[in-house]
Amino acid sequence: MKPLIRNKKQKAIVLLSGGLDSATTLFLAKSKGYRISALIFDYGQRHKKEINCAKTLAKVAGCDYHIIKLSLPSLGSSLLNRNINIPKARKERSGIPSTYVPARNLIFLSIAASYAESMRADTIFIGANAVDFSGYPDCRPRFYSQLRKVIKIGTKAGVEGKALRILTPLINKTKKEIIKLGAKLGVPYALTWSCYEGGKVPCASCESCLLRKKGFQEAKLNDPSSKS
Amino acid sequence: MKPLIRNKKQKAIVLLSGGLDSATTLFLAKSKGYRISALIFDYGQRHKKEINCAKTLAKVAGCDYHIIKLSLPSLGSSLLNRNINIPKARKERSGIPSTYVPARNLIFLSIAASYAESMRADTIFIGANAVDFSGYPDCRPRFYSQLRKVIKIGTKAGVEGKALRILTPLINKTKKEIIKLGAKLGVPYALTWSCYEGGKVPCASCESCLLRKKGFQEAKLNDPSSKS
Repeated sequence: MKPLIRNKKQKAIVLLSGGLDSATTLFLAKSKGYRISALIFDYGQRHKKEINCAKTLAKVAGCDYHIIKLSLPSLGSSLLNRNINIPKARKERSGIPSTYVPARNLIFLSIAASYAESMRADTIFIGANAVDFSGYPDCRPRFYSQLRKVIKIGTKAGVEGKALRILTPLINKTKKEIIKLGAKLGVPYALTWSCYEGGKVPCASCESCLLRKKGFQEAKLNDPSSKS
Repeated sequence: MKPLIRNKKQKAIVLLSGGLDSATTLFLAKSKGYRISALIFDYGQRHKKEINCAKTLAKVAGCDYHIIKLSLPSLGSSLLNRNINIPKARKERSGIPSTYVPARNLIFLSIAASYAESMRADTIFIGANAVDFSGYPDCRPRFYSQLRKVIKIGTKAGVEGKALRILTPLINKTKKEIIKLGAKLGVPYALTWSCYEGGKVPCASCESCLLRKKGFQEAKLNDPSSKS
């Protein structure tokens, strides 16, 4: 009988939305040699299309993935409630836009921590970004500093001294830098989806589309998903 | 036409498992005059019976409730994985037992924070207890201190200065004190469920059954759900 061959690679969880940032994070984690499980959240987002993109990206990257279904309250968020319009380009980039989903990254990372502890993965990657971003409070570095502490205190692994690492490798990068990094890593950006509207083609006017466009322009690269 | 009568009561979310502690917390919050939405989690627990108890308790208390379905990884927890036996009375009350579910309260409270922010509730009640408890790290006061900070930093409400209150009114009470409080508040303990096994009747030997029994004995009250 052949001996069981164990994969000794370090395990990591990658939060994968199907957008540009999480795809870059996935390929970055892969390039570091981690054995990756991607978590994909189906939380009632109107751009459901990103879920299929995330699945395809995980397959292309050769990772397994879990789809987590969640029912979140949709009252106030334009990303969940189709009765609220997705805002077009904001005149002033201040305040938190209506696409904000209350406590989203906290929920995603809590579930990721549970998966990580259960699967004995010691690292979680999330592609949060606090430079070319929509101003969401749960994308800022200080949120992650505090979250690491609460996960250390509130989990068995943390109490036993095996604190989970939560890595945010893109947090201080511009969209241009992220895209240049992804291009080097061979991220198939044609398979990613950024538009909040979730129509057949990107709307080209929501904040997410505009940040993506700006990033590719500044990186002097063509967006392979763009028809123009 | 009659004017619309608005209920001006302060809104609160109560995490309701259907057990003794969360039922007491529900009735305590009710006694304080809050307008309550109970959150009930269906996360694959083997004692699914508690979900029906929770629904009944919410109805008896006159609260609305939401059932949140969640698929959590079941690998290592005897509360989720039926291939692992629920431990019987522990000889030494040290360490974290196999009934531990990784990051459970962090997940529950993250989702509760999302509901609270969405529904404009400013308070969350959880019946966590760190005295007569199973040693879970996410039942200790320091976990809640850190969690309040991360929710303040990571949510729109928190950033705007309307920090969510997370109240743990039972955290430093003994089971005896909780039961005496609940008896005063008229908690229908016959409708609660504590046993981890989730059989037809409580197993009377898991840690949760034993803590309950000890509590009623010390409070010098009969457990109305007990057949003995």
